[in-house]
Amino acid sequence: MALTEEMAIQAKNASIKLSAIPLEIKNKALYEIYKSIKTRTSEIILANKKDIGISEKNNLASPLIKRLRLDENKINEVLNGIKSLIDLEDPVGITISATELDKGLELYKVSCPIGVIGVIFESRPDALVQIATLCLKSGNSVLLKGGSEAANTNLILSDIIAKSTNIAGIPDGWIQLLESRSDVNEMLKMDEYIDLIIPRGSNEFVKYIMDNSRIAVLGHAEGICHLYIDDAADLDIAVSVSLDSKAQYVAVCNAVETILVNEDIADSFLPRLNEIFLKNHIEIRGCKKTQKLINVKSATEEDWSKEYLDYIISVKVVTNIEEAINHINNYGSKHTDGIITKNKNNAIKFMNLVDSANVLLNCSTRFSDGFRYGLGAEVGISTNKIHARGPVGLEGLVIYKWKLIGSGQIVGDYSSGKTKFTHRKLNKKFKL
Amino acid sequence: MALTEEMAIQAKNASIKLSAIPLEIKNKALYEIYKSIKTRTSEIILANKKDIGISEKNNLASPLIKRLRLDENKINEVLNGIKSLIDLEDPVGITISATELDKGLELYKVSCPIGVIGVIFESRPDALVQIATLCLKSGNSVLLKGGSEAANTNLILSDIIAKSTNIAGIPDGWIQLLESRSDVNEMLKMDEYIDLIIPRGSNEFVKYIMDNSRIAVLGHAEGICHLYIDDAADLDIAVSVSLDSKAQYVAVCNAVETILVNEDIADSFLPRLNEIFLKNHIEIRGCKKTQKLINVKSATEEDWSKEYLDYIISVKVVTNIEEAINHINNYGSKHTDGIITKNKNNAIKFMNLVDSANVLLNCSTRFSDGFRYGLGAEVGISTNKIHARGPVGLEGLVIYKWKLIGSGQIVGDYSSGKTKFTHRKLNKKFKL
Repeated sequence: MALTEEMAIQAKNASIKLSAIPLEIKNKALYEIYKSIKTRTSEIILANKKDIGISEKNNLASPLIKRLRLDENKINEVLNGIKSLIDLEDPVGITISATELDKGLELYKVSCPIGVIGVIFESRPDALVQIATLCLKSGNSVLLKGGSEAANTNLILSDIIAKSTNIAGIPDGWIQLLESRSDVNEMLKMDEYIDLIIPRGSNEFVKYIMDNSRIAVLGHAEGICHLYIDDAADLDIAVSVSLDSKAQYVAVCNAVETILVNEDIADSFLPRLNEIFLKNHIEIRGCKKTQKLINVKSATEEDWSKEYLDYIISVKVVTNIEEAINHINNYGSKHTDGIITKNKNNAIKFMNLVDSANVLLNCSTRFSDGFRYGLGAEVGISTNKIHARGPVGLEGLVIYKWKLIGSGQIVGDYSSGKTKFTHRKLNKKFKL
Repeated sequence: MALTEEMAIQAKNASIKLSAIPLEIKNKALYEIYKSIKTRTSEIILANKKDIGISEKNNLASPLIKRLRLDENKINEVLNGIKSLIDLEDPVGITISATELDKGLELYKVSCPIGVIGVIFESRPDALVQIATLCLKSGNSVLLKGGSEAANTNLILSDIIAKSTNIAGIPDGWIQLLESRSDVNEMLKMDEYIDLIIPRGSNEFVKYIMDNSRIAVLGHAEGICHLYIDDAADLDIAVSVSLDSKAQYVAVCNAVETILVNEDIADSFLPRLNEIFLKNHIEIRGCKKTQKLINVKSATEEDWSKEYLDYIISVKVVTNIEEAINHINNYGSKHTDGIITKNKNNAIKFMNLVDSANVLLNCSTRFSDGFRYGLGAEVGISTNKIHARGPVGLEGLVIYKWKLIGSGQIVGDYSSGKTKFTHRKLNKKFKL
């Protein structure tokens, strides 16, 4: 369906009602989705096969077809995701702070949904269910724009979600599926109704959205992640964490792309790194100092800001930790960067001064992920500097409201000095 | 000075160092500013008189000249502001959550500065000190663009701040004053170096910035605030809160602009409201039902979305609380809206369903303010739906970083099933 203002208004109105819906109903709706996906599995797989057939005819690249495929295994993963989402606490209605402004005048800061979220995602149709259920649990309406190659799969999945949630008492119009490419541009103009856009796409695409909309964007840029091997590193850990960070799964944003090596341990570390990377068919591109110690290709200036997403890595020898930190802050993408060291002060310095969402000590960059962080579910990884940073769970889909409970107080009495503020922290939850 | 890329880079580099500077040094720097403003008070007043002289020659409107004036009283307020800022806790380095991912693998979510803040403010030069000191306390660099009519005052104030903080050991370049109008447009392009823009200006100006920059904006739109007088209202409270909300200070964003009256109490409430508003020279513009009960001017459709900032108010009779909530969500500015009622369920409904930063029960809309909320200091009032909402204190100038402390762990061991995540909440603060 093409996005109209009417649809956006419907989503906005639904979001107002949804913001006050209790946890039991939201969980009931999630369970209805779970049941319906289970019952209609063969239908989903059929729709997906249709999409794959069309994509194969259109010669879609095979990694994209792989991402598009929704088989029984993936559907089971989706079902497990819904189950664990049901188990999570309600992110809405949490009292963040409580203050007595004066006797009988109490201020509460209480979490609430953001409102209407616009999500633009690529071919993976399982992402539709994941995002829609996260929005539901956090009480937000969602406008979803999926890839055209997954049109049939997305259609049946959104139909299942809309019908199941309607049964449970969730207001109509809270979820809407957009299909045409022009809908994205329509969405960007609707700052009156849409409160946040989450684009899951390339760096260029995220920038395009930021340049063409007033709406706030929860953006995920590329992942140019680094490991710095300090002169006080345990070299066994340095070797195994380097290999895992690069090769455990190369096609993801939290895989390492550059290893920075302190010159004092370069001659003992680099031959070991080279040996194990050769064995694992990983190409090293080194700076001049690296090339003096191991026989590798040379890295050019472009290599330092390249997200390979492949079995390739760049290596640079640095004079000290300061050079490493500067390199990361200049060339990195503020995503995930780690240090390998036994020196506590160096670890503190690195973790304070590296300006990234995730800073790691003595472990793999691949840990930087919502599931591994124990967030239960992940909206995405944010490289924003406001609102939510790094792996974003349900808490990234809520904001707060100030609720002030009085008994007739007026400001005139305080500015005249007749009465005074107490400003006393209260240790209680909001309740009327 | 005209904004150059070099200046922005300097601010960025200073922000990295500033992010790791301990509280004692930040407080020492605040105290140096305090002392220097005190010592150089006559110089400041002289510079301000120069600005006022020029503005009077240029026939600047008298309310603007009033805002421009920085006399001994205002300087004392500025000094008191710095003192209370010193007393506030460090917003940086707070452990927001701690999780054991596995034995010896601990994840901490720790607050940290945002980075570089661009602030554009109007003629009030005391705002310069307020904003700069808030940025300092929260560890952020700041690029300040003030109004040209306050050029001399802003110059001496920023000079005082730069010199005093330098003495205390704060890195150079953390504060920079921009003066030309074209600097604003330069600022908007520098998304590589500037992390957040706080515009203090008109609604149109905030929209202009959102339309012309990728940088996140902490925006404050207009304040179209409402009071809804429920059928279960205490009418004495309704009358006194209405008067205070409108007339305690009319020229501010948290003054009420529209009063919505439940039809069941309209005939007893409206004559009382009319009487006291007449006495206080407040013009009422009423809907047709209002005009049947009291002798007032008629309100047009435009009145419902008008921020008068004056001794004028619009009044509408509504059938029920639902109509009131819908009216507020349609015509309001998501700033501050209150209900007067003794009915708990109506209060709950109103506070849940009104989509505004501040929702109030039985008290004046004028309470919606950082100082009255006890935040100690106020960056501004945000009508954003992400990051920070309502009166924003120091916590709006920080974000967080994920810090993961390991001892050699690799992801391969978890995906192979060799070891498992524990995901246990820890009740401890981050410390290496």
